[in-house]
Amino acid sequence: MKKWKPEELKDTVAAICRAGGIPSADADMIADVLVTTDMRGIHSHGVVRLARYLDCIRAGGIKPAVEPATLNESGNSLMVSANGGLGIPASVKTMTRLLEKAEKNAIAMATINHSDHYGAAGYYAMMAADRGFVGFSMSNTCPLVAPTGGCAAAIGNNPFAYAAPGETHRAVLFDVCMSKVAAGKLVIAAEAGKKIPSDWILTKEGKPTDDPNEIWHDAVMLPFAEHKGYGFATMVEVMTGVMAMSGMMGGVHSWNTQPGRDADTGHCFMVINPGFFGGVPEFRKRIDAMIDELKRCPTIDGVSEVLYPGELEWRREESARRDGIALPEASEKELARASGMVA
Amino acid sequence: MKKWKPEELKDTVAAICRAGGIPSADADMIADVLVTTDMRGIHSHGVVRLARYLDCIRAGGIKPAVEPATLNESGNSLMVSANGGLGIPASVKTMTRLLEKAEKNAIAMATINHSDHYGAAGYYAMMAADRGFVGFSMSNTCPLVAPTGGCAAAIGNNPFAYAAPGETHRAVLFDVCMSKVAAGKLVIAAEAGKKIPSDWILTKEGKPTDDPNEIWHDAVMLPFAEHKGYGFATMVEVMTGVMAMSGMMGGVHSWNTQPGRDADTGHCFMVINPGFFGGVPEFRKRIDAMIDELKRCPTIDGVSEVLYPGELEWRREESARRDGIALPEASEKELARASGMVA
Repeated sequence: MKKWKPEELKDTVAAICRAGGIPSADADMIADVLVTTDMRGIHSHGVVRLARYLDCIRAGGIKPAVEPATLNESGNSLMVSANGGLGIPASVKTMTRLLEKAEKNAIAMATINHSDHYGAAGYYAMMAADRGFVGFSMSNTCPLVAPTGGCAAAIGNNPFAYAAPGETHRAVLFDVCMSKVAAGKLVIAAEAGKKIPSDWILTKEGKPTDDPNEIWHDAVMLPFAEHKGYGFATMVEVMTGVMAMSGMMGGVHSWNTQPGRDADTGHCFMVINPGFFGGVPEFRKRIDAMIDELKRCPTIDGVSEVLYPGELEWRREESARRDGIALPEASEKELARASGMVA
Repeated sequence: MKKWKPEELKDTVAAICRAGGIPSADADMIADVLVTTDMRGIHSHGVVRLARYLDCIRAGGIKPAVEPATLNESGNSLMVSANGGLGIPASVKTMTRLLEKAEKNAIAMATINHSDHYGAAGYYAMMAADRGFVGFSMSNTCPLVAPTGGCAAAIGNNPFAYAAPGETHRAVLFDVCMSKVAAGKLVIAAEAGKKIPSDWILTKEGKPTDDPNEIWHDAVMLPFAEHKGYGFATMVEVMTGVMAMSGMMGGVHSWNTQPGRDADTGHCFMVINPGFFGGVPEFRKRIDAMIDELKRCPTIDGVSEVLYPGELEWRREESARRDGIALPEASEKELARASGMVA
């Protein structure tokens, strides 16, 4: 299996983006977000997505070369429109401006509307953590999840992430969506010919099912922990679709099934500066202390250690930096397809 | 069964507080927080807690008459110490000051350290929503929950709440803790002599159990949705214990089992002003539209309607206002005990 050096894979992705009509600086941002995500082992949100971005550009659903516009700005806030462009460069640019504001503020917040898929939510939270701040990142999606008691997809599988920097430990990083299981787990079960627990998804018609193949037929995802996942999905919708004045709920369109249509996705970022609450160095030390205390927790039978949120990602990223990135077959295939599209 | 008029119950609670050495204005705040919470049907965090606050005051773990101190302040932030006093008045006063800051800021944040139990997290989030803002409220607690893979209580069952105001609908309100089930559910199962699923709690020794009576023997709570509940518990710990420079993790002490000891609890509040992101009236209309879309979702068999987060609480509050508050037996008993303590 090919092992990609991170810079080699980034160059490859960026070159494809440029050939697809994406401005050079934006292409580099997309390459960094996707490849970093693969390095962290989140292959579902890595380079596997690139060809689909190009599909959307070709179909007219994403404008490859627009600049985000500032709709409103204050000392500690930004309200941005991605102008129907790519979600990743709009998000990197907005987060970069927000980090400047956070230098002089205890807390700062940005919204983005009229955007599209922005990759892994955690990347933007880590932009803040790598500067010594706490970062939050969230996005809505097209309806995929049933509210508690409902039998239809009414709300997005809205990603939510936060990150907080340590001193010897890099950072706590937590990045989740709102469904009980990720679509990837259903695909794996389907490929293995296995049945799934009947509380993971509903059929398109709203009936319980133990057949993972329903994922190919517009299955409805059920939220994690019943009303808790529903409540967090609603929180993200409030902060993205509603607050950002973006598409919300059924007004967000699937970039996967409707590549020619404006997705009108909304994002939200928050950055907190611990300098206003006791100091950044002290905060980092205390994050270390929290992590060390978690890791001292005795384990259940069969588990060798307690991991802190993000620890697995840092191990994978380190290994990818040292030994290269082994992409899953689907990622290699989609990367080759993307390359073919712009050849 | 006695039905309390809300004002009558508030007067009763406030009078007990005053007789217990709590300043008059603080007593009114405690009465409003506890009784409002009972009106919303969250009896586990209502007047049932009053006698325990008095226990802590008598035992020296809570100082009844101290004022919070401002440790740091900026245009959009407050860092407060509760000075070992009661969590409720410190939180109401801090949130009141934070709402003033939010009038002139897109987002503002406050931390409180050296505090104690602050009642229901959602009350403070609703203080923001009732002013047209989005509010977040969180607190850490003494260790009660095992991290994923762990078999001991290492992190708090940290409450988290948010609220966002509608126009015709009052607000979305979501208030959760991080365990798979609330302690109250275990008590109900124990009283009914029923077994529980073996993934709800561990025994004090870290072994799986189906016996709800373990709740009386330092059972370890398991987080909701495995690593997701663990990750959210850690998020709240980061924003409260770590950021607020308060007690964190094992440094927070149980006000229930160690009433004579300083709990050193941390809280965090965030308020967002939609006026900086498209306008408060427009935001409220969009919250209504989101709610209406959720309520139009078709339901699974046996469910008559989809509820939005908080809807049940508003129905109960309205009914309590109209017909009075029927307190559970445990609440009446603890209220009588509190009354007896100060007689």
